[in-house]
Amino acid sequence: MSTMKYDFTVENLGECKVKSPIELSLDHGTFRAAYVKDSSFVRRQVNVFKDNDDAEDAKANNLEKAGPREYIYFNPAHVTAGICTCGGLCPGLNDVIRAVVRCLWNRYGVRRIRGIQFGYKGFFTEQGYETIDLNPDNVDTIHKIGGSFLGTSRGGGDRVNDIVDSIERLGINMMFIIGGDGTQRGALDIANEIDKRGLKISVVGIPKTVDNDLEFIDRSFGFETAVQKATQAVNSIHMEAHSQINGIGLVKLMGRESGFIATATALASHETNFCLIPEVPFDMDGPNGLLAHLEQRLIKRHHAVIVVAEGAGQELLTSTNQTDASGNKKLADIGIYLRDRITEYFASKKIHINLKYIDPGYEVRAAVTTANDSIYCERLGNNAVHAAMAGKTKIVIGLVHDKYVHIPISMATLKRNIVDPESSLWRDCLDATLQPVYMVNNINTVTDKLRKNADEAEAKALARLEKVTQMLKK
Amino acid sequence: MSTMKYDFTVENLGECKVKSPIELSLDHGTFRAAYVKDSSFVRRQVNVFKDNDDAEDAKANNLEKAGPREYIYFNPAHVTAGICTCGGLCPGLNDVIRAVVRCLWNRYGVRRIRGIQFGYKGFFTEQGYETIDLNPDNVDTIHKIGGSFLGTSRGGGDRVNDIVDSIERLGINMMFIIGGDGTQRGALDIANEIDKRGLKISVVGIPKTVDNDLEFIDRSFGFETAVQKATQAVNSIHMEAHSQINGIGLVKLMGRESGFIATATALASHETNFCLIPEVPFDMDGPNGLLAHLEQRLIKRHHAVIVVAEGAGQELLTSTNQTDASGNKKLADIGIYLRDRITEYFASKKIHINLKYIDPGYEVRAAVTTANDSIYCERLGNNAVHAAMAGKTKIVIGLVHDKYVHIPISMATLKRNIVDPESSLWRDCLDATLQPVYMVNNINTVTDKLRKNADEAEAKALARLEKVTQMLKK
Amino acid sequence: MSTMKYDFTVENLGECKVKSPIELSLDHGTFRAAYVKDSSFVRRQVNVFKDNDDAEDAKANNLEKAGPREYIYFNPAHVTAGICTCGGLCPGLNDVIRAVVRCLWNRYGVRRIRGIQFGYKGFFTEQGYETIDLNPDNVDTIHKIGGSFLGTSRGGGDRVNDIVDSIERLGINMMFIIGGDGTQRGALDIANEIDKRGLKISVVGIPKTVDNDLEFIDRSFGFETAVQKATQAVNSIHMEAHSQINGIGLVKLMGRESGFIATATALASHETNFCLIPEVPFDMDGPNGLLAHLEQRLIKRHHAVIVVAEGAGQELLTSTNQTDASGNKKLADIGIYLRDRITEYFASKKIHINLKYIDPGYEVRAAVTTANDSIYCERLGNNAVHAAMAGKTKIVIGLVHDKYVHIPISMATLKRNIVDPESSLWRDCLDATLQPVYMVNNINTVTDKLRKNADEAEAKALARLEKVTQMLKK
Amino acid sequence: MSTMKYDFTVENLGECKVKSPIELSLDHGTFRAAYVKDSSFVRRQVNVFKDNDDAEDAKANNLEKAGPREYIYFNPAHVTAGICTCGGLCPGLNDVIRAVVRCLWNRYGVRRIRGIQFGYKGFFTEQGYETIDLNPDNVDTIHKIGGSFLGTSRGGGDRVNDIVDSIERLGINMMFIIGGDGTQRGALDIANEIDKRGLKISVVGIPKTVDNDLEFIDRSFGFETAVQKATQAVNSIHMEAHSQINGIGLVKLMGRESGFIATATALASHETNFCLIPEVPFDMDGPNGLLAHLEQRLIKRHHAVIVVAEGAGQELLTSTNQTDASGNKKLADIGIYLRDRITEYFASKKIHINLKYIDPGYEVRAAVTTANDSIYCERLGNNAVHAAMAGKTKIVIGLVHDKYVHIPISMATLKRNIVDPESSLWRDCLDATLQPVYMVNNINTVTDKLRKNADEAEAKALARLEKVTQMLKK
Repeated sequence: MSTMKYDFTVENLGECKVKSPIELSLDHGTFRAAYVKDSSFVRRQVNVFKDNDDAEDAKANNLEKAGPREYIYFNPAHVTAGICTCGGLCPGLNDVIRAVVRCLWNRYGVRRIRGIQFGYKGFFTEQGYETIDLNPDNVDTIHKIGGSFLGTSRGGGDRVNDIVDSIERLGINMMFIIGGDGTQRGALDIANEIDKRGLKISVVGIPKTVDNDLEFIDRSFGFETAVQKATQAVNSIHMEAHSQINGIGLVKLMGRESGFIATATALASHETNFCLIPEVPFDMDGPNGLLAHLEQRLIKRHHAVIVVAEGAGQELLTSTNQTDASGNKKLADIGIYLRDRITEYFASKKIHINLKYIDPGYEVRAAVTTANDSIYCERLGNNAVHAAMAGKTKIVIGLVHDKYVHIPISMATLKRNIVDPESSLWRDCLDATLQPVYMVNNINTVTDKLRKNADEAEAKALARLEKVTQMLKK
Repeated sequence: MSTMKYDFTVENLGECKVKSPIELSLDHGTFRAAYVKDSSFVRRQVNVFKDNDDAEDAKANNLEKAGPREYIYFNPAHVTAGICTCGGLCPGLNDVIRAVVRCLWNRYGVRRIRGIQFGYKGFFTEQGYETIDLNPDNVDTIHKIGGSFLGTSRGGGDRVNDIVDSIERLGINMMFIIGGDGTQRGALDIANEIDKRGLKISVVGIPKTVDNDLEFIDRSFGFETAVQKATQAVNSIHMEAHSQINGIGLVKLMGRESGFIATATALASHETNFCLIPEVPFDMDGPNGLLAHLEQRLIKRHHAVIVVAEGAGQELLTSTNQTDASGNKKLADIGIYLRDRITEYFASKKIHINLKYIDPGYEVRAAVTTANDSIYCERLGNNAVHAAMAGKTKIVIGLVHDKYVHIPISMATLKRNIVDPESSLWRDCLDATLQPVYMVNNINTVTDKLRKNADEAEAKALARLEKVTQMLKK
Repeated sequence: MSTMKYDFTVENLGECKVKSPIELSLDHGTFRAAYVKDSSFVRRQVNVFKDNDDAEDAKANNLEKAGPREYIYFNPAHVTAGICTCGGLCPGLNDVIRAVVRCLWNRYGVRRIRGIQFGYKGFFTEQGYETIDLNPDNVDTIHKIGGSFLGTSRGGGDRVNDIVDSIERLGINMMFIIGGDGTQRGALDIANEIDKRGLKISVVGIPKTVDNDLEFIDRSFGFETAVQKATQAVNSIHMEAHSQINGIGLVKLMGRESGFIATATALASHETNFCLIPEVPFDMDGPNGLLAHLEQRLIKRHHAVIVVAEGAGQELLTSTNQTDASGNKKLADIGIYLRDRITEYFASKKIHINLKYIDPGYEVRAAVTTANDSIYCERLGNNAVHAAMAGKTKIVIGLVHDKYVHIPISMATLKRNIVDPESSLWRDCLDATLQPVYMVNNINTVTDKLRKNADEAEAKALARLEKVTQMLKK
Repeated sequence: MSTMKYDFTVENLGECKVKSPIELSLDHGTFRAAYVKDSSFVRRQVNVFKDNDDAEDAKANNLEKAGPREYIYFNPAHVTAGICTCGGLCPGLNDVIRAVVRCLWNRYGVRRIRGIQFGYKGFFTEQGYETIDLNPDNVDTIHKIGGSFLGTSRGGGDRVNDIVDSIERLGINMMFIIGGDGTQRGALDIANEIDKRGLKISVVGIPKTVDNDLEFIDRSFGFETAVQKATQAVNSIHMEAHSQINGIGLVKLMGRESGFIATATALASHETNFCLIPEVPFDMDGPNGLLAHLEQRLIKRHHAVIVVAEGAGQELLTSTNQTDASGNKKLADIGIYLRDRITEYFASKKIHINLKYIDPGYEVRAAVTTANDSIYCERLGNNAVHAAMAGKTKIVIGLVHDKYVHIPISMATLKRNIVDPESSLWRDCLDATLQPVYMVNNINTVTDKLRKNADEAEAKALARLEKVTQMLKK
């Protein structure tokens, strides 16, 4: 498999000499929580094959545990914290903001907390956005509504100098950045610029990706809520399809490069017949293509539900070669493509169908968190504060085997997590949909292509790792 | 105002000689429900102006009360009932089906109840759909899921002879037809053909229009549920708009010719800034056009939410001149039009906006009923059964001043109910959105146009009334 | 039937000479809302029996239409409005508060709006509660959470002098009081004391009764939401009962003297087998008692769901002879009684049952409104403001035949609305539950008792009417 | 720490010689799912302390991976499967049943699947319950409703001989038992009796405990749904408390010996001020008791919310010394106790409070699963089928580090999982509620007691382990 040698060493701003104001136990066995030590780790690798002991490898892959330290780097009285949310909406943004503010205020006694408005753009003086002073009162009920209390926007992470200038001007020495892949890479650049200027400012990220495509972590916040909402949408469209002559429900869900939302929704809805994701190519035509299988399904059951991730089947479409403000490739629209191709196909066969196409994306993104997601956001926020107070920097908070850890941003952004077609998750999804393993006419072409994709992704990640390693050496 | 003379006389198949198997009281004051008499009516007109007593007119407008009769026309042992659902989905279809089946079975002891599949098409032999035998067991839990248990389809109501042939072949002597305007006109044609053949078959409609555009009745079933769902969609898009720089949320809702769903949703969401409905024309451009007002709103509040009924602003669009299978005019897409025009406008002004456009229609149509809607469906179904058992025909069941009544199909389909721009409903909507009364540059043109529209609608209804009256004379 | 002669004449503070700042049309036919005239009424009586014309009577029963008047009594610049919420929680309190504040502020330009905290107690100086200054910003999102933004409490309406002193001290000349029966009687006393002191202060009530027991109006706000929530609770308990051997689900719902919530919930849930309400007495024992029927149901179907209103079956219990702070009679607990009696009965018969008893009251009362309820609250609030601005006083806002009207508090509190056992509502409820019309062993005793109850209620109302009439003459 | 040596070796019925009908890949790297090998394990221990390498220990604690095997033990054509659900309701029962049925039917082609009604009691001939033949059609929509499609009951697991007789009589050779701690111990006894009789019947458990108190596994199914529902209840009661003068909301939640639901609900609600769980003792009286802290909270904030697990504070109550049918100790009612003590306390201090007490247990247990829980149930069910087909027996399916594994019932039932007061979960809960770490007056007494409890639990588990080990040796 992968030959990458990860380095999960966490960077610190300096020695921790300030006694934490949180009173915890110094040791275990006292029936109250103890401080977490920097020598506590979580093992990343848990798969064991009897004939192939990975103990050696596992040690290299340990992740530093998150949590409150006995000695911290910052004197709370001198802390000015900043928080910003970047990129698209995702359920839970407000829950995270609220947790960061409350932990800073209630646990550490920090009294200067600045909310940066509308993502990185809030740092740019020409935009004229003021910061919002945050405290437990004005964030008290924000978790009950969706969206971002601070506002968000895409892009801007490349204007590193402007951002650091602004951070200096605001007197911020602890910056919490909630955002995705691109945002966190920006955060790393910002932290490196901070280093270069010799400043002591902690940069801690809380990774946000509704697509759940972050490597290493169990899941991203907002993902479960997204699946909950998406499942309701699929259930609606299923009722519609089921009530029509040859009803076809087509639902496009989020998932640019990773089909986790589509896969989980297919499993949770129990009513999806075809789940199409970026990781698993498919043909439209031919005896083993989607259209033929869809026709078979209609003959047998008179209705069908298709769930498609927005990044699925891109190879079937004319590329757009455009990017959005976050630097993400603009995808051609697979939903429209499928709608039109399916309509044409059955029209040409003189089969009357009733196709309904929906894209519930915005409702999914703006949803209020489920209880479990809300807990996750609260705990991510708390741990981000503990990390920043201890002078940790250039990290994101992650959840690994249900434990909170520090992951260097450099590692967290190496490559995306994808739905492994060999995984039990996808296997269970196929069992739920009863769709063919591959809807393609020449399986060899596909596996060749998948191998090529995997190799390219690996090479890209290695190149990034190399770059990061060089940077660290400097 | 209107000069129409309605005739709400209900047609019967013949004299009722069968004692009802339901044991009710014969009189009031017994502390148990009494049979409803054919001499019980509900006054339609309740507005009173002191100087203009309408007592005379009111009497002419009485509506026959629905409910179980002491003597019924059909011997339950000889009844074969048929049920079909036609047209688009609407919340509550299954609740109505369930109520009809349960009332027939439990209250009257009817044991032959046939569900026609997929609307009027289920009658056509070449389609090959079999009927479903319905009983309290197989409809027991169908109200818990959306859609139509029987399936539905558009159109087919013009093949009157085929349908009556099929009804005869199935031995049905009591036909329940759940559907909209077009469907009910078809039902009237069917009932007239039944008359012509000298058959004794009751045709009772349950009016279904998620748009709530039926004249005379308080509201249509499914409407409240639709508004509940639509309100949730608007709340989502509001969160999205609120979290973005110059965020604009644009929501297209159902409402081809009547803006009730949009109006009620704007009121219920409390977060709509512009509500656009077919009944109130608007200009895009000019100092008092939508675009100028939208720009003002963004300057003041940095975000905006627009709710638009699908039939709004049709005069701004190039007509499609097409109709769907139900005979409804295919509307040009105002949602897409607004999205594109707004995007162009702000691009040309170099104002950065974030516009999100959603059309939650299918989720709204497939929803499970709210409690109140479910009660309404149950009571509509019960009263439809009571009416049919008493030999009433060519009627729909309506709710007038919270009382269930029989309305001749001929009257119910004369014209559509619309949002009156002079009504307190629209006044309260304007108070909720704080939008201008008319976003037009020349108010006279608009009022002239509205007057012309109203006159045309009135003339059309009069013509229909004339036709119906002629028919009745024959 | 009733021999009462109602008097729906609305009292005014004085002549309206101030031109309304709301610009409406002066006449109909202009395609924009017109001012409502004091000569517009809504007919209360809509039942018509052919041989018994009620035109005469109907005229006496006209209710004054609510809405904005062309000329108003108060100069908005001189208005100080007060709002308070009294009694138990009810869904929609915050929606009403928000609407009153927004209509005062946005439509009339009123800038001094004082929220009284914790009901009438907020007026008592010894409690030390300050008023909250209300404006569209601080009430902007309160409709998204349940409860009362102002807080509420029971009782205190009898300290009329203290309250009017406090109103004078606060300089309030327009008082909005949201509360139930007892609260509104207090409001009338307050308004009478205001009269006595020669003050010009408008007192407008918004009637709040989750039990829906207010005479004359279509329904009370919060009622639909309560039924929605209660239906969910019944569905849960039904699942529980259905999954157990001889599972019995017992749900106690609100309804001290009127069983509307229980009745509507039984209808909406479609899974209730016995619905017990105060208006319909029942026996526990004997061949036609509840226990015998429950046993029959278990034998046939192995599970059962019972919905009971808190005021049902009080004659079976030992009276408590206590009242709560609102002056309501403290009811003995029918839920506990039923639970214990049913348990004993089946234990004595050695029949194994699984009984689960729940009282979801507080969840129901604290719920966020459904869309339809929220619209209703908004429009009640708007119309309350229009009424107060026009100098109307001693009235509550009501909804009659879907039209908003002014009802004198003296009439609105004459007697409670109850579920009429002869009504089609109860008839449809019996059809839904399939329970016997009366579960009693001697029907004559019961009807005698019901007649006696009805006579007593009528006599009590007549006495109140007499008292009110005397008061008006003075 | 613990000195227990677990043995996670999985027992098999015999050699697997039947080629699986599921076509999977034989190896990794093929871009399709491969069969899972018996040599695949998941490491249980993931905590790493730098100075204390646990590699050695970890190896001893490996758990066998679940999933489809290439060769299976049973010939699908000869399989008769049985399913039963035991104990109290829990969200997800129907989702699990559905998944087991569909995987057996669709993936393995098994056609004889018998649903045992009402738990273990369904096996007892004197009860007269027939089995229900299950297939994908009759379980198709059962996941949309709560409860158990098969019915459930407590107890009966001790009548091992009767149960095995019945299993033989029904010809079942694959038994799926969904139930909690006591049920699974019963399942082990059943499997041992099967062994003794020399039968080849696989017994596979799916552990059900809404309290989430199962050792080793990440979480139990239904737990997240329970927390979702409980959080809604807490939010309601918070609104009530917040709207009253000195409003106190008291919510009793499930959790006999483990406070996971209460803890997670306190975190998710963000509105809980005191979270009381069995694992953390508290005093009522004294300067550091609950009552004093509650009084302080009311003085500062005028309202408070208390969440209490049913098993909390048992030391304060008079023991009942009774057990229910499942053999669980009947707990004295801490909710009632708290309600009464709080009421008395403030009455004695002449402080007016408004206390509302709710127990939303049944609504929580009967809820429909969240999307994430539904996925979990589906995958548990699939893996249970894969295990049984491969002849695995005496195991339950577990989720460990997000991977599905086989856990011997003997290990899974050794001891309960509890909320560790030293864990980061409880630490974050304290941060959320801001309650004191311990509300006791003498901390030493408490830690002594906790140590004693822990030692006793450990000794009990060791004794069980000893017993199990002896049994295995035989």
